[in-house]
Amino acid sequence: LLKGEIITVGTEILMGQITNTNAAYISNELLKLGVGVYYHSVVGDNHKRLMEVLSCSLDRADIIVLTGGLGPTGDDITRETVAELLQLPLQKDQDWESRLEKFFSQRNRPMVESNRKQALVPRGGKLLPNEKGTAPGVYLEYKNNTVVLLPGPPEEMKHVFKKQVCPLLKDKLEFAGEKGVLLSRSLRIVGLGESAIEDKLQPWLNNQDNPTIAPLAKRAEVHLRITARSKTKDEAIKLIDDKEKEISGALGDYIYGRDEEELEHVVARLLWEKEKTLAVGESCSGGLLCHRLTNVPGSSGFLLAGMVTYSNEAKMNLLEVKKDTLLDKGAVSEAVALQMAQGSRRRTGADIGISITGIAGPSGGTPDKPVGLTYLALDTQGFSFCRKYQMWGEREDIKIRVSQVALNLLRLHLLGLIEQC
Amino acid sequence: LLKGEIITVGTEILMGQITNTNAAYISNELLKLGVGVYYHSVVGDNHKRLMEVLSCSLDRADIIVLTGGLGPTGDDITRETVAELLQLPLQKDQDWESRLEKFFSQRNRPMVESNRKQALVPRGGKLLPNEKGTAPGVYLEYKNNTVVLLPGPPEEMKHVFKKQVCPLLKDKLEFAGEKGVLLSRSLRIVGLGESAIEDKLQPWLNNQDNPTIAPLAKRAEVHLRITARSKTKDEAIKLIDDKEKEISGALGDYIYGRDEEELEHVVARLLWEKEKTLAVGESCSGGLLCHRLTNVPGSSGFLLAGMVTYSNEAKMNLLEVKKDTLLDKGAVSEAVALQMAQGSRRRTGADIGISITGIAGPSGGTPDKPVGLTYLALDTQGFSFCRKYQMWGEREDIKIRVSQVALNLLRLHLLGLIEQC
Repeated sequence: LLKGEIITVGTEILMGQITNTNAAYISNELLKLGVGVYYHSVVGDNHKRLMEVLSCSLDRADIIVLTGGLGPTGDDITRETVAELLQLPLQKDQDWESRLEKFFSQRNRPMVESNRKQALVPRGGKLLPNEKGTAPGVYLEYKNNTVVLLPGPPEEMKHVFKKQVCPLLKDKLEFAGEKGVLLSRSLRIVGLGESAIEDKLQPWLNNQDNPTIAPLAKRAEVHLRITARSKTKDEAIKLIDDKEKEISGALGDYIYGRDEEELEHVVARLLWEKEKTLAVGESCSGGLLCHRLTNVPGSSGFLLAGMVTYSNEAKMNLLEVKKDTLLDKGAVSEAVALQMAQGSRRRTGADIGISITGIAGPSGGTPDKPVGLTYLALDTQGFSFCRKYQMWGEREDIKIRVSQVALNLLRLHLLGLIEQC
Repeated sequence: LLKGEIITVGTEILMGQITNTNAAYISNELLKLGVGVYYHSVVGDNHKRLMEVLSCSLDRADIIVLTGGLGPTGDDITRETVAELLQLPLQKDQDWESRLEKFFSQRNRPMVESNRKQALVPRGGKLLPNEKGTAPGVYLEYKNNTVVLLPGPPEEMKHVFKKQVCPLLKDKLEFAGEKGVLLSRSLRIVGLGESAIEDKLQPWLNNQDNPTIAPLAKRAEVHLRITARSKTKDEAIKLIDDKEKEISGALGDYIYGRDEEELEHVVARLLWEKEKTLAVGESCSGGLLCHRLTNVPGSSGFLLAGMVTYSNEAKMNLLEVKKDTLLDKGAVSEAVALQMAQGSRRRTGADIGISITGIAGPSGGTPDKPVGLTYLALDTQGFSFCRKYQMWGEREDIKIRVSQVALNLLRLHLLGLIEQC
């Protein structure tokens, strides 16, 4: 397999001021092309350290993508360092220099001498025009390596990658032949922990071949990645499809989506399909369930209202919870959860009411009702139920887990699977 | 200066499934302690490659922080690889093993054999308890290097870092001596854009010495980082304090907090200090304002209720908005915002009512009322006002910006500064 490596140049990343989203983007794009990335490195705007990192990557990777350090200032040293290490003299690209001159004159800004270095290209390299800024990229085949230089600002980097680098790498990979491609898909799983998933998938996990599978625990869900290597992209897709079928057989409805599809989007889709409206009564989740649902564009089509009722008075006034029940059973109880779900439906006329009441902590817990205790209830015409959960973690973790369980209950209810979960 | 390096272990990052936020967090934390980070590396769950990367970093860095690969599965190899490279046998930590057994039995989940390896520590290392998961960290002094192992899930990593690693490194750095320290503080600024801030800070930005200052635009706020280098931590703090005073003179109340202090925490503190209760009426922000406020532990002390009223009916039923006003002015209007703020107070008896109504997009905009148009209103005994904003960006950006503006209005109101903003 062709090995990729990404080197991000920039002190601001080493200071933690900026997250290295460029490396994630390029990794993902390379993988879509069939190139597996084996290393990311970040190094500051420092000549000696960049030399070291780059010479190391020349030995271990086939395709090296550098991003950052192509600007006009003295700090920007990527172009010069690459040229020096590969012993390729820098040559001026006349076209780009004229373009720079035009760029500055059109904007009535003086072009300083240092801008001219952005028109330099190591001998044998191809200048990659950048329509969004003054720093072009460079594409270079050198001995056994392909070295790509990209600007650092994410918009410019993506633009040059998509428009210039992708076609060049596609051409290259057409002829990769023996080396083949690597492709990947994630299945998103909710309602089962990582170890339970591993139990169910033991036969596959213990006999990893091609495709491989790997679970990844996220907050309140698990992503299972299927990765295939093959001669061609079509073959790899076929391998992944087949493996997904086997895994779906083992995990069934715990799988809720693929790749980027979030749980709130799946719930929204089901609500649209079934033409159901929703009202939400929240206590310990504090509005997070509503927030997640309203992140979905068009959610105003199904979400009639949400009520965050922290106080007993709010539960009575807004959700018609009975005072007696609050006194007898306490705010965190099955009876109150059910009344909240019913109340949120009655107050809005929604088809489905869902409610959450619990103790998010850190304070407010008792031996009987510890932090994390939560009741979720769902109420529809002629059908209502309540479930009790013991969540763990800190306040924000509990809020996230509770909202996740609520979304999953909605999903299972809408799929007619509520008895199974 | 002490040199830091961060090694993130995880194939999912190399595949671009996850952005390496852990490295950004750790970099930032190390810098606050006085350690400059010179390299980030990412490597997959692969024994040979991790050996290579780690042995390289032992030569070039003083403090090496590894994150990821401490889970129970066969993929998780960080602990074993570090032990092998440093030639330190793995020893079982009995306390942690019992804790694991308890953890699983409390959750009625079977503890599989592979979980036991999470209780292993390279000889001479200190186990760092993880209260949020089953994978503890490890702190190891080995020859001239300090090697720290942290779990990969961000909330577990942050928790172990803050609670366990910070105090250990602080002790170590007390004795850093000649090498000196690098320290940094962020001022958090809201209500002013990056270029406006640069205008106000031009004298300082143009004459950078020690400390240096650097603004960084975040979503809906700007962080200004002050970084000092000095022989001792105390000297560095003094340098930063002095610089902060000068900058506060120029930016005044636009500065709302420092370092990790989020805007919702500042608002919560002010509400407690002034002993005021709050009710929230939201439309386009969809519950996000409530969610952010309820992330603050103890927010049930001031937040009586939140109502997310997407539909006109909900605005009328829950917030007592008048039908005529909705018909005459539309849901996104000053009059409706004011009635929502008044209604949320009346319905709950809160001291302060705040409301948001707008168009989050992507659809729903008109030439008169484009996507992003938002009205925010605040109502208290004898005082109410409304402001109009034009937000930009995608749906989630707009929700975040709107909630930020609402929190800042609350802050300025509680500080008695509302006329200035």
